[in-house]
Amino acid sequence: MNESVQTSLRCRVDRVATSDPGDVSGLRQLLDDGSLDPGRIVAILGKTEGNGCVNDFTRPYAVSVLQALLSERLGCPPDQVASSVAMIMSGGTEGGLSPHLLIFSIVPSELPPSGTPTLAIGTAFTRAFRPEEIGGLQQVHETAVAVRSAMSQAGIGDVGDVHYVQVKCPLLTSGRIAEAAGRGARVVTDDTYGSMGFSRGASALGVACALGEVEPDAVTEAAIGHDLSLWSGRASTSAGIELMCNEVVVLGNSPLWAGDLRIAHAVMRDAIDLGAVQDTLRALGLAASGQIDPIDAGRIHAVLAKAEPSRSGLIRGRRHIMWDDSDINATRHARALVGGVIAGIVGQTDLFISGGAEHQGPDGGGPIAIIAARKG
Amino acid sequence: MNESVQTSLRCRVDRVATSDPGDVSGLRQLLDDGSLDPGRIVAILGKTEGNGCVNDFTRPYAVSVLQALLSERLGCPPDQVASSVAMIMSGGTEGGLSPHLLIFSIVPSELPPSGTPTLAIGTAFTRAFRPEEIGGLQQVHETAVAVRSAMSQAGIGDVGDVHYVQVKCPLLTSGRIAEAAGRGARVVTDDTYGSMGFSRGASALGVACALGEVEPDAVTEAAIGHDLSLWSGRASTSAGIELMCNEVVVLGNSPLWAGDLRIAHAVMRDAIDLGAVQDTLRALGLAASGQIDPIDAGRIHAVLAKAEPSRSGLIRGRRHIMWDDSDINATRHARALVGGVIAGIVGQTDLFISGGAEHQGPDGGGPIAIIAARKG
Amino acid sequence: MNESVQTSLRCRVDRVATSDPGDVSGLRQLLDDGSLDPGRIVAILGKTEGNGCVNDFTRPYAVSVLQALLSERLGCPPDQVASSVAMIMSGGTEGGLSPHLLIFSIVPSELPPSGTPTLAIGTAFTRAFRPEEIGGLQQVHETAVAVRSAMSQAGIGDVGDVHYVQVKCPLLTSGRIAEAAGRGARVVTDDTYGSMGFSRGASALGVACALGEVEPDAVTEAAIGHDLSLWSGRASTSAGIELMCNEVVVLGNSPLWAGDLRIAHAVMRDAIDLGAVQDTLRALGLAASGQIDPIDAGRIHAVLAKAEPSRSGLIRGRRHIMWDDSDINATRHARALVGGVIAGIVGQTDLFISGGAEHQGPDGGGPIAIIAARKG
Amino acid sequence: MNESVQTSLRCRVDRVATSDPGDVSGLRQLLDDGSLDPGRIVAILGKTEGNGCVNDFTRPYAVSVLQALLSERLGCPPDQVASSVAMIMSGGTEGGLSPHLLIFSIVPSELPPSGTPTLAIGTAFTRAFRPEEIGGLQQVHETAVAVRSAMSQAGIGDVGDVHYVQVKCPLLTSGRIAEAAGRGARVVTDDTYGSMGFSRGASALGVACALGEVEPDAVTEAAIGHDLSLWSGRASTSAGIELMCNEVVVLGNSPLWAGDLRIAHAVMRDAIDLGAVQDTLRALGLAASGQIDPIDAGRIHAVLAKAEPSRSGLIRGRRHIMWDDSDINATRHARALVGGVIAGIVGQTDLFISGGAEHQGPDGGGPIAIIAARKG
Repeated sequence: MNESVQTSLRCRVDRVATSDPGDVSGLRQLLDDGSLDPGRIVAILGKTEGNGCVNDFTRPYAVSVLQALLSERLGCPPDQVASSVAMIMSGGTEGGLSPHLLIFSIVPSELPPSGTPTLAIGTAFTRAFRPEEIGGLQQVHETAVAVRSAMSQAGIGDVGDVHYVQVKCPLLTSGRIAEAAGRGARVVTDDTYGSMGFSRGASALGVACALGEVEPDAVTEAAIGHDLSLWSGRASTSAGIELMCNEVVVLGNSPLWAGDLRIAHAVMRDAIDLGAVQDTLRALGLAASGQIDPIDAGRIHAVLAKAEPSRSGLIRGRRHIMWDDSDINATRHARALVGGVIAGIVGQTDLFISGGAEHQGPDGGGPIAIIAARKG
Repeated sequence: MNESVQTSLRCRVDRVATSDPGDVSGLRQLLDDGSLDPGRIVAILGKTEGNGCVNDFTRPYAVSVLQALLSERLGCPPDQVASSVAMIMSGGTEGGLSPHLLIFSIVPSELPPSGTPTLAIGTAFTRAFRPEEIGGLQQVHETAVAVRSAMSQAGIGDVGDVHYVQVKCPLLTSGRIAEAAGRGARVVTDDTYGSMGFSRGASALGVACALGEVEPDAVTEAAIGHDLSLWSGRASTSAGIELMCNEVVVLGNSPLWAGDLRIAHAVMRDAIDLGAVQDTLRALGLAASGQIDPIDAGRIHAVLAKAEPSRSGLIRGRRHIMWDDSDINATRHARALVGGVIAGIVGQTDLFISGGAEHQGPDGGGPIAIIAARKG
Repeated sequence: MNESVQTSLRCRVDRVATSDPGDVSGLRQLLDDGSLDPGRIVAILGKTEGNGCVNDFTRPYAVSVLQALLSERLGCPPDQVASSVAMIMSGGTEGGLSPHLLIFSIVPSELPPSGTPTLAIGTAFTRAFRPEEIGGLQQVHETAVAVRSAMSQAGIGDVGDVHYVQVKCPLLTSGRIAEAAGRGARVVTDDTYGSMGFSRGASALGVACALGEVEPDAVTEAAIGHDLSLWSGRASTSAGIELMCNEVVVLGNSPLWAGDLRIAHAVMRDAIDLGAVQDTLRALGLAASGQIDPIDAGRIHAVLAKAEPSRSGLIRGRRHIMWDDSDINATRHARALVGGVIAGIVGQTDLFISGGAEHQGPDGGGPIAIIAARKG
Repeated sequence: MNESVQTSLRCRVDRVATSDPGDVSGLRQLLDDGSLDPGRIVAILGKTEGNGCVNDFTRPYAVSVLQALLSERLGCPPDQVASSVAMIMSGGTEGGLSPHLLIFSIVPSELPPSGTPTLAIGTAFTRAFRPEEIGGLQQVHETAVAVRSAMSQAGIGDVGDVHYVQVKCPLLTSGRIAEAAGRGARVVTDDTYGSMGFSRGASALGVACALGEVEPDAVTEAAIGHDLSLWSGRASTSAGIELMCNEVVVLGNSPLWAGDLRIAHAVMRDAIDLGAVQDTLRALGLAASGQIDPIDAGRIHAVLAKAEPSRSGLIRGRRHIMWDDSDINATRHARALVGGVIAGIVGQTDLFISGGAEHQGPDGGGPIAIIAARKG
């Protein structure tokens, strides 16, 4: 953030539709018409139309074509793109969700710092974890450190100004488990799919610690993945096979940044907590009794939320069938549901709603954050 | 309705949860505690947790156990139950939808007719169709006649007082197609699955004709299943293998009925038309800027809606992936989405949302009706 | 078997196709034409066309209609049918598998005992288990006792004459777990789905103990569900919610029975072990270099096999994707595959192939048994 | 083939496993160790682990990474790779099928032409089709011309020496339909998914015409997609969005080629026609009464087959549920089944079995071809 303090920076957010997971035409257009400098891109979040589960190859496919495009434009190899631009694809556009990319860049602004709360972004990386650290306290602590580092980079001093923290974290594979075993080390679980939940959970608790949402002492090894009373209302974490460190993107507000974007968030207590979505809109000056009008809807640059079926099997006392459906994965049901609840009030379907919400909001609920342009 | 005029009748609506498609404990409880006379039941609508598509056996399973229970209590064979109680199961509780039964009965009331618009119900049957008539003009016309007959039975004279018409209609099977071919008759399609859409569409257009929603002259053979500009805003039709006639249930309001229930409806222009849901609530005195409060929510006895992916592949200009998903049927996505939109505002998930909305509302939208108890 | 010794009994096996899970017309036909006495039926095994997983309601649906039919014909309530006829439905007819019922009955024979190995059947029940016993050593031991009791009933003294043991066993539900917890007892797992595997595994090990396939001392609590080197080559177990005891059906050969049917079995070492299928056919005199001819195929009354994806993720060193497919459950892939392997050699697709093969054959393999009429 | 006649060429077939659709390590290894010259590769066929249906993005993902690798090694842009190497990915590895690539290259041989029937390969392209030609007679005729051109390139004069013809053909998209409509031209169907079947069918009939398997006069517009009595026993066609011409790969035997590989084929009359697989093996000297032994199995370089559910809904008179399963697409069931039948006899699971067999073998059956090294 040192640079931004002196020269005035702006966090730009481009939302572009994709026609399929291999479609980079939206980003290419932005680069071709000269409006976006590829070297300014710091993060790309995307909703791709796979199943969002184990064999969802739409995620690496999208990353592969995005890296190829940026590699070509930046004149550097794809791995170098990988280490400088956080790319986090969330699979699953169930219900009416519309596949899209959210491109975050830090661009110089001709205007001075806004002096009012304005969208700020910072990124950070932890060191690489050893397999036996995934899902454990080391991952919690290192993530907390990285969140604070990203906050500092974003020029955000007060944890209350952080509204959304996206983390990409590693998972266990058979090879990684074997490597640890070879050294006599024990991993958190032998179930590779299950390891994703532990890694997401530990990462979310790391965010919660950094933001003062939980007492660090309460976070024990035994609590990770189990004590659902511990959660962050601003973390969104997803596990991927392609890295061994945690990649952290902090979004918040700071008067040191220029531009007309702002972010707000709330916590949905359950999957149909419309009030939380309205609270978020209200904080951005987009309040309405019902669906917001198209002009206000046009101010929205990104909607970011987590979805997860309640473990109780109930929503306000009524049974849901998500856990028992062996044809459609539970997280797919949850994304469709939360997507409908939010789309109803914001009047648009290109929402970044991702599943796997361990320690991210209360059981069956989750964080929601919205980035919108200021009115007037 | 002759009976109701003289003795004062009330349309009772019981909404009972089910723990699985074979669970009749909720209805049994009502019968056991003497609160409900089995002979008074005229219709049972149910959401069951199958896929809502071709091989959804949760529907006949539910019908089978419900008929067995009523057969036992009424002391008559199951087929006699079948011909006196309309049972319409809609498969698919995607997203957060909660499996439940809606039990409609006509019970004597100690109170006089309300004198104000009050929930009224009427049922009627067409003659059995020949296979070659399914999906054609004869089905349209006979359905229109049956709707008017059910209106008359419900004591509703003005089509404006009809708010929801549920139709169960036949479909083609290989055997039925062959029987018609044996007589030299041609059916509307050789595709048995496709015949469901034609039968639903013709039935919906029959409702539209009866209610004056379309010009009867506009309804040609060629228009059925194709001209999406023709639709009913109050029809909900579903096709089943177990009958050859159309079974019609008309729900509306009439001052001749007793009780504190009322019905209202609106038409969702698209899948995220929250305003239509709010209009319906407003007509019932349940208006709110956002989710209705638990006390108002408690007044709701039934929420009935149709869901269908837009053929354009878009929702407000943004791509949906429902038609292209070969893992999850398009109607499953649509139910999850519309369920989320409605659950967000009514704060409950036991909603009767069914798919297959040919000529039932505009492309991608559909009717919504709510039955609620009067306030105060 | 006392009865059979004196009067000469025959085990009859009727294989009838079903047009859907609620179709009992095949059985009704056998009862209507007087060829089968309903009171003689001891077991019905069926393949139904659901997903074979948690929300497969085709199984209880089939049981419900079968019990209703037998209840009507026997003039007794459905629960009495439940306690006298073992009904074991296996969901999942993936690939080319054809839904069907196998009806086992014990009928008087006009012929004397055959004096040669002839199909014999015996059934037995364990006592009801407490929730905390499911998946544990008590279930193993009680199952072993029941197998020996069923053998004795079948007139089989030598374990080598037992070729197939079907077991239906209980599973844990949230309610059962809570009931045990209320008494301070701990269940094997809190995961209700996971409890099915433990119950099937313990039951299979019970069969293995009874048949001398494993050393009883090797079967410890820790081994159940984990030590895959312990297995029965003749057990086929499936878990169901509707019972708390183990229901055991033993099939073998005995000279004390009349009739021309015989059973043989082998163990498939992996999912494509065609040799094991050929060994089984050879033992029945149906050997062929390739697919057996239609006349020999016509001698087959039942094909019974288990299918399970190898935990290694490999088949003969080549990767399979069954475990990683989040759209299709692994057991569904496995049934389709094993169904293809067996159908290729027997030239028919109405095969009783069921999933969930814990301790039933080696990892990735499983038992196969065939019942066929003797030649000449 | 002119080159091959003079210098002696060999058709090399490398079968490499993939760990996921983006895995090119097997091919990279062959290029890195110098054993394979990237400029010699003429075709790559691959089985990828998607659903093989509309939203199977594993196919373009695999093509994208393969083109990127070859582009890098050949020092030319990806599109140039696209126009010189036929890449045909078939999605769907249901049952036990193992994802893999078949890399066909034409390499110089130090040995003279074999003088005996030896694997030969030729490729050809039709001109680009206009949308209104897809699925019509022009596509049939142009494909036939291309097949003969590829035969000539392969040095195969006698149609009896052709054993397998892989065709990749275009499909209709909304945009292509609109473009045709703008010119007043009518396409074969407005259903984009349905257009794939018409394109595959017309392409297969083109092969059938070229190989003399059907009378050209019998192939009318009306017959395409409808008259199932017309078929090729050697065509395997698949439709893709990325081209507008037909790409043709002919595989056969010719004495003009060097090497020890040979190809043979047969036609499976239905999905469980094991005899056809055995006939193919027998033609290659790999006969066995049952599964071939590991040494013979090691001679096999490629197994290529088509799978399709019978439209009758029956396999040898027994019902299959493939068409009625709304959870798993019919072609997925079919691939799993045929994969099991073939794996049982060849003892391996890396089989190139693809779906969509319109006019490719009889209803419910399809061609099977095997490439194997000569014995001794």
